[in-house]
Amino acid sequence: MKINDFLRYMECEGLKKVVLTKRENINYFLGKYFPFFSVLVFEEKPILYVGELDLEYAKDNLNIEVRKFTGWKEIFEGCDGVESELKIEFLKYLDNYKIVSEKLRELRAIKEKEEIEKIKKAAKISDKAMKYIIENPEGNEREKAIELEYLMRKEGAIKAAFDSIVVSGRKTSYPHALPEDREIKDILLVDIGACYEGYCSDITRTLLLNERGEFREIYNLVKEAKELVEDYLREGVSTKFLDLKVREYFKEYEKYFIHSLGHGVGLEVHEFPTVSKKEEIILKENMVITIEPGIYIKDKFGVRLEDLYLIKKDGFEKLSKVTL
Amino acid sequence: MKINDFLRYMECEGLKKVVLTKRENINYFLGKYFPFFSVLVFEEKPILYVGELDLEYAKDNLNIEVRKFTGWKEIFEGCDGVESELKIEFLKYLDNYKIVSEKLRELRAIKEKEEIEKIKKAAKISDKAMKYIIENPEGNEREKAIELEYLMRKEGAIKAAFDSIVVSGRKTSYPHALPEDREIKDILLVDIGACYEGYCSDITRTLLLNERGEFREIYNLVKEAKELVEDYLREGVSTKFLDLKVREYFKEYEKYFIHSLGHGVGLEVHEFPTVSKKEEIILKENMVITIEPGIYIKDKFGVRLEDLYLIKKDGFEKLSKVTL
Repeated sequence: MKINDFLRYMECEGLKKVVLTKRENINYFLGKYFPFFSVLVFEEKPILYVGELDLEYAKDNLNIEVRKFTGWKEIFEGCDGVESELKIEFLKYLDNYKIVSEKLRELRAIKEKEEIEKIKKAAKISDKAMKYIIENPEGNEREKAIELEYLMRKEGAIKAAFDSIVVSGRKTSYPHALPEDREIKDILLVDIGACYEGYCSDITRTLLLNERGEFREIYNLVKEAKELVEDYLREGVSTKFLDLKVREYFKEYEKYFIHSLGHGVGLEVHEFPTVSKKEEIILKENMVITIEPGIYIKDKFGVRLEDLYLIKKDGFEKLSKVTL
Repeated sequence: MKINDFLRYMECEGLKKVVLTKRENINYFLGKYFPFFSVLVFEEKPILYVGELDLEYAKDNLNIEVRKFTGWKEIFEGCDGVESELKIEFLKYLDNYKIVSEKLRELRAIKEKEEIEKIKKAAKISDKAMKYIIENPEGNEREKAIELEYLMRKEGAIKAAFDSIVVSGRKTSYPHALPEDREIKDILLVDIGACYEGYCSDITRTLLLNERGEFREIYNLVKEAKELVEDYLREGVSTKFLDLKVREYFKEYEKYFIHSLGHGVGLEVHEFPTVSKKEEIILKENMVITIEPGIYIKDKFGVRLEDLYLIKKDGFEKLSKVTL
């Protein structure tokens, strides 16, 4: 399917040879998690070039023609299509070329059945870890992050999809921060993801360990903002509209919402489409995105709630299911 | 030191503004592990641009001027120096530019004191994990890989430096392979690394669980090849010479040595210099490299032994210390 779609695109665009070097684009077409050096070349059909050392492994484990990589000159000979992420060091091999990344982004954004299954599994794994920390929030930030990652690995993840965020107290006022060797207290923000067969999940919960009026008020505002988005979430809605809806809802707190509302998730934890006020993208069926409103008050605390959604014709399926 | 060296280089080359986007290059100058989006711009001094959401965290945790990223146009305005890894999508912002990556590779190859300390710590962590599996080799490949990674995390690693290779039986005949849900048997190849504050280690051991004459013979050959390299290993020796020495020593088994002898290790697990017959690089004091001879016999088994070395004026310090 994917391969034929891309070959058809090449034909329509009059492209003779496309070279892909970005790992996630390659793995997309392989339909497998292959972490070793490789280059995917599309001519009449796709051919994967790998180092001599990985030749037998690739042949035995991938459903694609595999050849030995012998040098970049051969790879780029006659190439007229490349990714926007191609390193400029390869420019010397290129003459005229077209960037094919928009097509790749589009293809990858609409998930196929097997991709959805893998993302669902990744979401299930991060749900298990999130459930564990919700039930056991006491301890040390760093140690807790390690336990969560261990749990995700045991549930089938190849690795964490990104450096786990397990931070507490004032540190929650940073949307991103690394766990440290310090006791968890007051408010705990956990943003984790699993990588299952190359596909990612992404979920955030904020736990109020010491209830205070102020926390609860902000927490509810963020929670309601996410629910508001869910009211509109379906094929055909604009990402910009959703982001602006949340900003409008936050009123005087809008200035504390210092990131986009969400992003696509798949082989990369951040991929097309972004859900932000900066760009208008119309959601389509089988896109997978996060919605993650957040309010961060400097030197005090932050609250973020993030879920993972599969977009449907008339709504969505929430893939991250763990509740507080 | 690093920053002044690079500013001096810019002055010598007549460069006014260099833009760095590659994470490891940025973290090199930061002297910190910073995994979030950022761009490092060198003019009279270095300035780190980060997203609005990471502004406070970066200001509070990094010893460098931090500004809010507002767009690529501003970043590349007047830029005349970039990395070879820059994505071609940014070409539209560039006029004349020089590639500064050779200088960056050179700087990064010679490790400073604090960098060596971090690599030593990473090596100590992977040693602990390796010691554990040497003492407990029975079990399932995948489960064992998970235990090793958990152990490395608990010992202080931010993460595994790469997907752990824990494979057994015939699968060892692939230099790279992923662990699966299968029992470990006969021969076990373990190639792991820790990432400590951004710096990597890399170590491989092959365990003969069921002694057979054939295994032992090949094992000894690989072991002797590594010892042979150690006889020559010091500042001033050529990497190509070392690689060819091993090939010569392997005689009729040379055809089974299907990868390079080694590679530099630092912020990346594979970085400059490569230790291969393809390129002649003269080793210098305070480079950190692996030496990893291997013999892989198709459909039978493979043996690889890899250690991590700090190059000294008159020899080396072996950073991976675990013995069988």
